[in-house]
Amino acid sequence: MKKVAYLGPKGTFTELAAVTFLNESTRIPYKDIPSCLQALDNQEVDGAIVPLENAIEGSVNITLDYLVHKHNLPIVAELAIPIAQHLLVHEDNASDLQALEAVYSHPQAIAQCHEYLMEQFSEAQWVYATSTAQAAKEVSEDPSLKRGVIANELAAQKYGLQIVAENIHDFPNNHTRFVLLSSKEERFELEQSRQEKTTIVVTLPSDYPGALHQVLSAFSWRKLNLSKIESRPMKTGIGHYFFIIDIDHAYDKVLLPGALEEMKAIGCKTRVLGTYPSAVIYEEQKEYTV
Amino acid sequence: MKKVAYLGPKGTFTELAAVTFLNESTRIPYKDIPSCLQALDNQEVDGAIVPLENAIEGSVNITLDYLVHKHNLPIVAELAIPIAQHLLVHEDNASDLQALEAVYSHPQAIAQCHEYLMEQFSEAQWVYATSTAQAAKEVSEDPSLKRGVIANELAAQKYGLQIVAENIHDFPNNHTRFVLLSSKEERFELEQSRQEKTTIVVTLPSDYPGALHQVLSAFSWRKLNLSKIESRPMKTGIGHYFFIIDIDHAYDKVLLPGALEEMKAIGCKTRVLGTYPSAVIYEEQKEYTV
Repeated sequence: MKKVAYLGPKGTFTELAAVTFLNESTRIPYKDIPSCLQALDNQEVDGAIVPLENAIEGSVNITLDYLVHKHNLPIVAELAIPIAQHLLVHEDNASDLQALEAVYSHPQAIAQCHEYLMEQFSEAQWVYATSTAQAAKEVSEDPSLKRGVIANELAAQKYGLQIVAENIHDFPNNHTRFVLLSSKEERFELEQSRQEKTTIVVTLPSDYPGALHQVLSAFSWRKLNLSKIESRPMKTGIGHYFFIIDIDHAYDKVLLPGALEEMKAIGCKTRVLGTYPSAVIYEEQKEYTV
Repeated sequence: MKKVAYLGPKGTFTELAAVTFLNESTRIPYKDIPSCLQALDNQEVDGAIVPLENAIEGSVNITLDYLVHKHNLPIVAELAIPIAQHLLVHEDNASDLQALEAVYSHPQAIAQCHEYLMEQFSEAQWVYATSTAQAAKEVSEDPSLKRGVIANELAAQKYGLQIVAENIHDFPNNHTRFVLLSSKEERFELEQSRQEKTTIVVTLPSDYPGALHQVLSAFSWRKLNLSKIESRPMKTGIGHYFFIIDIDHAYDKVLLPGALEEMKAIGCKTRVLGTYPSAVIYEEQKEYTV
């Protein structure tokens, strides 16, 4: 892909995913998730990367809701990267961390590092920014403010900050899943991929006990593994749900069409959001071309 | 409850839920979700209200992860309120909306009103704040900046702003679910409740096709309706999941203990996060005692 929209500004975790998986594409930051999707719909770009699960900047719900209700943009790849939070400072402040008067970051990043902050910086102010990257940018611009910032490796490089404490997030093994969307149904080749996945949306015929159990039977007897299932409210009022189901299997010619046919036969509505390669990076990347 | 922690600052949607359901409690704002939970663990408060689903300020994932991994704080009530976004301005700017140079709010609120903003304020700047309430506070303090703010009714009242456009969010019928947590296992009486629910966490014995189907059988044949099911990654690495399941039934003496016993017998780990009354408010409340 030549041009890819991502959830900006520069140095967000979404850009980190773009750098990791699509290093040859031109990356264009957009200010929010709907804007990324709209840019793709308007053909300003060839693809869009947005967070889907466990994201810091931007909301998973917004991504799902827009993909299900507003757009018809197939998922062509899944990209999961580790979320490693570091404490960064301007080099002028690197020698005396005790002198830091504030720690600056996105509220979610601050929450993810709550234990560390309670231990090391309980006396400092915790100041919120609109994104980890924005916080890093501002801290790089004014070293006279004695501020640390919680952000990722890419932000440290982009804004010339020093990493003074690594991996300060409370939970290890934290990953964020991003999806690459395309305006075309063409297959996207993802070099790092080890698995094929398919994501479908299923709306049950009515809210009765055991309906979901019946739907899952269609996968179960075919030995199709589900890696994710989530119920989401319909936009028609509380208590009405649809299901987003990830299946560890490409959309083939026999098994998945058969399962979907059975669901339709019992009154479900189904829609395929995409069938795509999936890649997970386990180790934080230390070198980037930015 | 005498003292209740909530996700602040004043005027957030979380405070709106607290006002709606617990008007006689003293409300104490905390700066993030972990701090709310920690305050309850430290017995600084008797209860804590935090967002659980489809929230604007704060992340659902953080609430779930802290409840599952860090704390043992039972859910004693569920509170769902409609999320209605309005455009507010200082009264000095109410007569000429075309003159507004910027719209200010939390990034999620801006994203939820994307279509409205594209139609009405595509030329204005969209400026991010750390919460809808914080944005309202700042806009109230300086009318010389020609700024509108996207926030709720409560923020309009708290900060003396005028509502100049109502219900500007893209999707109607948008609700946010909050949970009330307690340090005690006592039953909490929720006046507005029409339903009892139980939330459990289930960890499957291993990742094999049909495991979830088998677990759901235990509910299905008992005709226990599930109102929500979500898989969440374990903190031990990607691909390991546990399930959060909401059941439309109180934890009784027969059906639910029986279902949980069967799950244990096939090797699952289970934990009850709470059995509690649930209330949904459908219409936005227009009058508050603030």
